Amino acid sequence: MEKSITQKILGSHFVSGSMVPGEELFIKVDQTLTHDINAVMTYLAFEAIGLPRVRTECSVSYLDHNLLYVNNMTPDDHIYLQSAAKKFGVWVSRPGNGICHTVHVSRFGAPGKVSMGGDSHTPHGGAIGMLCIGVGGMDVATAMTGVPMRLKMPKIVKVNLTGELRPGVNAKEVILEMLRRESVKGGLGKVYEYVGPGAAALEVPQRATIANMGAEMGATTSIFPADAQVKKFLEAQGRGDAYTEILPDPDAEYDEVIELNMSELEPLMACPHLPDNVKPLREVEKKKVQQVFIGSCTNTSYADVAKAALVFRGRHVHEDVQCTCGIASRQTYRELLRDGYIDMLLGAGVRLLEIACGPCCAIGQTPPTEGVAVRTSNRNFKGRAGNPTAEIYLVSPESAAATAIMGTFATAADVLGRDVYELANVREPDAYIVDDSMLIPPLPTEEAEKVEITRGPNIKFLPVPDVPEQHLKAAVSLKTLDNVSTDDITPASAEFSSMRSNIPLMSQYCYHRYAPDFAARAKEMGTSIIIGGENYGQGSSREHAAINPMFLGVKCVIAKSIARIHKGNLVNHGVIPMMFCDPAAYDSIDEGDVLEIENLLDQLPTRRVTVKNDTKHFEFEVSLDLTDNEVEVVLAGGQLRFLEKQLKEERV
Amino acid sequence: MEKSITQKILGSHFVSGSMVPGEELFIKVDQTLTHDINAVMTYLAFEAIGLPRVRTECSVSYLDHNLLYVNNMTPDDHIYLQSAAKKFGVWVSRPGNGICHTVHVSRFGAPGKVSMGGDSHTPHGGAIGMLCIGVGGMDVATAMTGVPMRLKMPKIVKVNLTGELRPGVNAKEVILEMLRRESVKGGLGKVYEYVGPGAAALEVPQRATIANMGAEMGATTSIFPADAQVKKFLEAQGRGDAYTEILPDPDAEYDEVIELNMSELEPLMACPHLPDNVKPLREVEKKKVQQVFIGSCTNTSYADVAKAALVFRGRHVHEDVQCTCGIASRQTYRELLRDGYIDMLLGAGVRLLEIACGPCCAIGQTPPTEGVAVRTSNRNFKGRAGNPTAEIYLVSPESAAATAIMGTFATAADVLGRDVYELANVREPDAYIVDDSMLIPPLPTEEAEKVEITRGPNIKFLPVPDVPEQHLKAAVSLKTLDNVSTDDITPASAEFSSMRSNIPLMSQYCYHRYAPDFAARAKEMGTSIIIGGENYGQGSSREHAAINPMFLGVKCVIAKSIARIHKGNLVNHGVIPMMFCDPAAYDSIDEGDVLEIENLLDQLPTRRVTVKNDTKHFEFEVSLDLTDNEVEVVLAGGQLRFLEKQLKEERV
Repeated sequence: MEKSITQKILGSHFVSGSMVPGEELFIKVDQTLTHDINAVMTYLAFEAIGLPRVRTECSVSYLDHNLLYVNNMTPDDHIYLQSAAKKFGVWVSRPGNGICHTVHVSRFGAPGKVSMGGDSHTPHGGAIGMLCIGVGGMDVATAMTGVPMRLKMPKIVKVNLTGELRPGVNAKEVILEMLRRESVKGGLGKVYEYVGPGAAALEVPQRATIANMGAEMGATTSIFPADAQVKKFLEAQGRGDAYTEILPDPDAEYDEVIELNMSELEPLMACPHLPDNVKPLREVEKKKVQQVFIGSCTNTSYADVAKAALVFRGRHVHEDVQCTCGIASRQTYRELLRDGYIDMLLGAGVRLLEIACGPCCAIGQTPPTEGVAVRTSNRNFKGRAGNPTAEIYLVSPESAAATAIMGTFATAADVLGRDVYELANVREPDAYIVDDSMLIPPLPTEEAEKVEITRGPNIKFLPVPDVPEQHLKAAVSLKTLDNVSTDDITPASAEFSSMRSNIPLMSQYCYHRYAPDFAARAKEMGTSIIIGGENYGQGSSREHAAINPMFLGVKCVIAKSIARIHKGNLVNHGVIPMMFCDPAAYDSIDEGDVLEIENLLDQLPTRRVTVKNDTKHFEFEVSLDLTDNEVEVVLAGGQLRFLEKQLKEERV
Repeated sequence: MEKSITQKILGSHFVSGSMVPGEELFIKVDQTLTHDINAVMTYLAFEAIGLPRVRTECSVSYLDHNLLYVNNMTPDDHIYLQSAAKKFGVWVSRPGNGICHTVHVSRFGAPGKVSMGGDSHTPHGGAIGMLCIGVGGMDVATAMTGVPMRLKMPKIVKVNLTGELRPGVNAKEVILEMLRRESVKGGLGKVYEYVGPGAAALEVPQRATIANMGAEMGATTSIFPADAQVKKFLEAQGRGDAYTEILPDPDAEYDEVIELNMSELEPLMACPHLPDNVKPLREVEKKKVQQVFIGSCTNTSYADVAKAALVFRGRHVHEDVQCTCGIASRQTYRELLRDGYIDMLLGAGVRLLEIACGPCCAIGQTPPTEGVAVRTSNRNFKGRAGNPTAEIYLVSPESAAATAIMGTFATAADVLGRDVYELANVREPDAYIVDDSMLIPPLPTEEAEKVEITRGPNIKFLPVPDVPEQHLKAAVSLKTLDNVSTDDITPASAEFSSMRSNIPLMSQYCYHRYAPDFAARAKEMGTSIIIGGENYGQGSSREHAAINPMFLGVKCVIAKSIARIHKGNLVNHGVIPMMFCDPAAYDSIDEGDVLEIENLLDQLPTRRVTVKNDTKHFEFEVSLDLTDNEVEVVLAGGQLRFLEKQLKEERV
């Protein structure tokens, strides 16, 4: 059979199971990545498992998200993470080196490898023909043990890119157009494979923008061929030897095909409050803008920032706008500095932030009250920037620069006129400045064994869920609307992300913007159930959106649909994810209703459970979209208990 | 009579009063400056006064301290401040332009002028022969009305600098040596005038380091001659026309003379937790260091950072150290970038922060738990960096760079050996990059009148104290130890500084690290009295350290001694500052004791008040070190009420 890229890589990593879409398979994982604001729980889990060293080819711990250090908690976490990495044979990318995805694709990634990362934008690495999947922190801990990873075989969608981007149109427009067509849940259970002559013309960082934001469609991942562009990129990184060609076979079969002519794209804009609310920028009502942020893993490659700088050249940020720029990596920063672009930004009045994720997840640069923020990052959920009264619009760096100058929504062409054609000349460097001095390599085993892990006072225990019981009777502590994101459940922000090592503390703030009384109510109820709408748990991969409710006694989530990574996190942390068989049942349930499930342990393996609403006196059916392995994990009381058992058996 | 520089400037600005040390005089103020985290109350006061426009030659509103924007409050404050500046004829220095003192001396300062700033490090401008005094925000509001400012005539101390700094020894060592000799309260009621051949050799930014940190001695201000160095500096800024020579007369009389031979200085270090705890760096026990911060107004001029970069050249920040650098101004950043020093820092693994005050006042970069932080900034009070368990050591940029490399306390010579002599070649540029595009000039009057002030929801009212009554009976809500700083009373930090527009909210956190139950207790008591030790209210000029206790019902502070700026703030906000005539009385008073003062209004003008301790049944005497005008202000119920009355009379 002629194979797609995805099939080839899955095939070469196949351990067991079935490669039929929707069925479960287990694959070998070559690489893992974690980042500071999600990772403490991951390494606590790895500690609990008790292996002396990771069993991957390469695992990297990135300290890149929260560099503000607004209190002692994050620096304490960084010290913990650095010492845990030393103990367990993990690379460290030090604060200031760059955003995980950008650094990983540049310095560690290789075509044909499988990588799992504790961040939803892990698919970024698909830009070089690597299969990269965003998962929860417990999954990363599992992958680090070398145990094959469960995966639901995705459908594979061919995206045939044709034409070429016009000057002032960015790869961002490709993914915004995809979002417009596919929606924030259109990618559930799918891998998007970008091929065709248009794809061949895109440089690796452009591909990364597209692969990265595939996460916003809920896709399992996105991938590009490992072709001449990838070869050029890896050679420019001094890593030509990491290159292997991986192309889809000429007649590869796909589950679906999408045609996208890039020549037809114009500057687009994702309007509040979802990244699929995409419109041509010129059609959006021109509002006064207070903040522009050019940054994040999605869109601050060399060429991205250089193009923005060229829009700014000889012009100035509007007096009512704060324009900040956070460049994705130290490597990119030094390239831009050498070529005069940093000075161009400074001259225009752009504020240069640290090399970090920062504002993308509300770690600084919160917009003012009822403010309008324009960003090059990947998410515009209500509150994502730290202020639920603000509106966030997502655009390309070129449009962001133009907007900063004009003080209202604008495109590069609005500012540059015919000179917009000059932007077409900007290309990635032929050779990057290679300096790995901010990477700390793993210690040799004998030295690693001697390392003492340093644990600040904020680093508390890893909570482990109870094993489920036959009879569940619990009241509804919360009923949500559609598209609740993990930001709604446990916000990021400088303040909250620093609490992530301390579940007893952080769980007090669970849902605190969305339903401020939830935490207290759930705690008082002791055990409870959450009712959700469509696409429950979309967005960031943060497993705290599962851990915190679990710690507060939530036993299951019954929703119309549940986002992929979040569903995995619920399973891992012993909260049973259930879906209404008839979504109409959602309407008949209210907060406070007492629900009852009998013979739960017997019903679970059938994937169909009968729930009784004791308050309203009716019954409804829920289904469990779980693989065999996931059912086992749920019955075991979460992934840590399951894994410990599995590794124990392995040793016996 | 032969005159000192101070006498010449005070003389040329004299309005009324007496120039005998300790007596009150009133002077004309030419310039004012405010900064974002102190200023909202200042402009609310100016609004309340009701003048249409400031009456100074030049007033500047700097947005420079809190650029983290961890929530909506600071961006809202920035928008308020920018609109208020437009309304009232005030310049704005936009976020990203630089730290107030550095920008002010470079772009606005002029020899012979008098400037009042709502920041304790305002004396920075003494580097160019300008008389610059740090005051409370209400004083700045007063100065902006054009009303002559009260001042207690200081003693004038001649500091005769001889010799020259050896390579690897910084102007920081001059001021640390002064602190070692004079202590944190040695400068109370004094102006330090730095003259002599050693002073003549120091460039303006070196002088600024010394004048800036004179604040740490509690001095009224510090000043240098306006001489060839100042001429060169202003010409390099393209502002040669602002230059006037101002030298002390050859036989000027001084109240005191200090001899300081700079050739004898070696690298020094201020050890925890006071800036006068100064020792030779080589004698301090070598501890492992987790954080190094090269930044703040005190020590990040071009030459400072260039020297640090040369220490780093070809070397790397130790793997266990986070080394951050916050350069003082956009101008300096661009100079350093042009000359290759920024890339040198990046290459060494230094993290470049935004151009802002930031970590100096705990706005980011909090050290880890029980961490050791080495900083080039000006204060090392316990908790100043946001974490009371951490230790802060103050050093020069050269020593900071060496420490970052070694991972423990080190000097430039420890790293460079004989090459340390190369540092002596680094000089300030002959011509700075002049670009004022981040300064917004005042609007013409007719346009200014049309401006609407924008007020975010966090910007609450300006609290106005009650007029004092004859009979005061109140319990002691707090008894403090010596050297309580304004950081102890109302911390800075990203979180707290963003609350400064909202006194009802912020006052809940008054003294919250020092005495967590204070706010609740004071509120419950209704009215109360604080008992303080020596040097009460040292440190930052923030008037919230007076406003918050006032809002909580504190009627007077009785201390062994009170720092100058804080005493002024207490007076301005209607809290009566009193001093024990016999410090032994301090020992006999406990929290909760009920104190009683009869005939308060009659006693106040005598500057001697009898206080009865109803609980312990004894009487003690307190003195009031207040000028006639300050007594009037206290009797009027604070400066705002006093000023309104005064301006009303002026109009009649």
